[in-house]
Amino acid sequence: MTEIKAVRWYNDTLVLLDQTLLPGQEVDFIADSVDKVVDAVERLVVRGAPALGAVGGYGVVVALDQGIRAGWTLEETQVQIYRIRDARPTAVNLAWGVDRVRPLVVEGRDAVLAEAHRIALEDTAANRQLSKLGADWILQQTGLSTLRVLTHCNTGALATTGWGTALGVIRELHSRGALGLVYADETRPLLQGARLTAWELEREGINYCVQADGAAASTILRGMVDFAIIGADRIARNGDSANKIGSVGVALACHAAGIPFMVAAPSSTVDLNTLTGDDIQIELREGSEVTEIAGVKIAPARAQGFNPAFDVTPAKYISAIVTEKCVVEPQRTHDVSALVNGEKT
Amino acid sequence: MTEIKAVRWYNDTLVLLDQTLLPGQEVDFIADSVDKVVDAVERLVVRGAPALGAVGGYGVVVALDQGIRAGWTLEETQVQIYRIRDARPTAVNLAWGVDRVRPLVVEGRDAVLAEAHRIALEDTAANRQLSKLGADWILQQTGLSTLRVLTHCNTGALATTGWGTALGVIRELHSRGALGLVYADETRPLLQGARLTAWELEREGINYCVQADGAAASTILRGMVDFAIIGADRIARNGDSANKIGSVGVALACHAAGIPFMVAAPSSTVDLNTLTGDDIQIELREGSEVTEIAGVKIAPARAQGFNPAFDVTPAKYISAIVTEKCVVEPQRTHDVSALVNGEKT
Repeated sequence: MTEIKAVRWYNDTLVLLDQTLLPGQEVDFIADSVDKVVDAVERLVVRGAPALGAVGGYGVVVALDQGIRAGWTLEETQVQIYRIRDARPTAVNLAWGVDRVRPLVVEGRDAVLAEAHRIALEDTAANRQLSKLGADWILQQTGLSTLRVLTHCNTGALATTGWGTALGVIRELHSRGALGLVYADETRPLLQGARLTAWELEREGINYCVQADGAAASTILRGMVDFAIIGADRIARNGDSANKIGSVGVALACHAAGIPFMVAAPSSTVDLNTLTGDDIQIELREGSEVTEIAGVKIAPARAQGFNPAFDVTPAKYISAIVTEKCVVEPQRTHDVSALVNGEKT
Repeated sequence: MTEIKAVRWYNDTLVLLDQTLLPGQEVDFIADSVDKVVDAVERLVVRGAPALGAVGGYGVVVALDQGIRAGWTLEETQVQIYRIRDARPTAVNLAWGVDRVRPLVVEGRDAVLAEAHRIALEDTAANRQLSKLGADWILQQTGLSTLRVLTHCNTGALATTGWGTALGVIRELHSRGALGLVYADETRPLLQGARLTAWELEREGINYCVQADGAAASTILRGMVDFAIIGADRIARNGDSANKIGSVGVALACHAAGIPFMVAAPSSTVDLNTLTGDDIQIELREGSEVTEIAGVKIAPARAQGFNPAFDVTPAKYISAIVTEKCVVEPQRTHDVSALVNGEKT
């Protein structure tokens, strides 16, 4: 089985696996101009905070290459780089990836590309490591040898440069023979759970079922789930975590049921400059994503959709956050800096 | 504007507004045989607990008429009546409607039909009355003059014999000039909110938007909602309430946000023989309702859907239940019999 690569540098440009067409078709999207990078980010051809970090890095190379072809001034190139940086507001990783490579622009395009490659490699390595730490924590916390887990949205190889975050922890548990069943929330409106998570789980041979997002609370309260795990798009300094719309409802249900609710993300998703969830900008997307499915209007013709793409789970409802550095239980601390800096020894 | 009639007796048989085709088409479904009644109930051509009560009553007339045409024995007719009674398990009203008219079978078909008409008339009257009581309670409870309300699934004229339950309370608030905005959860998998509630609200000229079910908790926690109100398919003696999947998640969010969560239903939905929610059978529907939308597979080909049609909200998360008899706050009592018998004076 070939490894899933959502983001890769191929034939000297950025190539994305077009996630809007999965699971029906596996088609590459060649993002060889700033317009195409921005379009891919806005339309969710590529999505997932860690994957967007790599797109930020590679996107700057695309902008530099286009600038050379088109004869842009440095100012024009900077404007185009900022278009990529600001294409989506909630996930910190996109801006983080752009900002990490920008200082290298003065050293030339190849230095930027090398740094973008490092972002991608580090992300995959971080995901492998956080998956081990997360699996250790949940096995110890629950004392169970086989776990039934609920997850929301897609946090697998498709959402990252490889392996996955929350889905990485699930894959790690599976590799240890400790995974019973995954409940994958379908994740309306864009169905990343039903389309993407299901597709990845099926490739991995992991036992799963898809449920409506509205079923999550009931499945948890009925005792059918041992823990829930999600990714994050931005984690504030106090532990408040932004993630795909529907996440906080899962957290509330876990809180009510007394089971662990875990957030898994690389340290690049932790934004220590954002103090609390109140400071996180929530992307409001087109209402038509809710009122239409696959271009067919399901609601009455004049119906307006309200479509926030993310929600914020307050730290008080999060049992643990794991990065490649460590696991932090945010209810015990008001500062999760250790997720970035590692635990003090 | 003509009144919406989901269930009516016309041309001497049962006629249903086919809700599977709304909002795109308004087509009648002629339910003039037991097979057609059962099919209509199973496929949700007609749905909503109070509407199913009337279908139960009228369905017995349909069975009697078919028995006469086909020369059924009394035993055969009874078997057919029980097929209608058991077509869906969770809503108590269907069996309640059948059981209410069955003793009149010995008095003849016209006596049964007269009782079925009484069920329908009483339901509409009950909905009008509970809407007034519910609106009184919520205005007093919140102290607000304009309310932003969140609702789940469809509980309007389409779900009843007329006017509506939770949506009836919303209509009552609207008629008093006290309604600001309705957030209508789309209600996956069958989209009763996006299709049916939106259609009714648009006809009524009520300000609304449709959101993904996963958005409900966040919308509530962000302070954008003053109260939430839902219907019920069965209310147990202790106040635990079964309703469309996704309801308990709304209740948990209201609990966390400290806003009222109200259940509105006619007293025919209260089942004093069911002691707690643990005794309510939850209908498990076909997984394909989740993995497909409008016949198109959205998940991978072999994906299994987990599709419980209802969930149970524990009484401790319900601020108030209203029937045509009174309002009961179930957290203050362990027995909601007053919802059926009226308050002791």
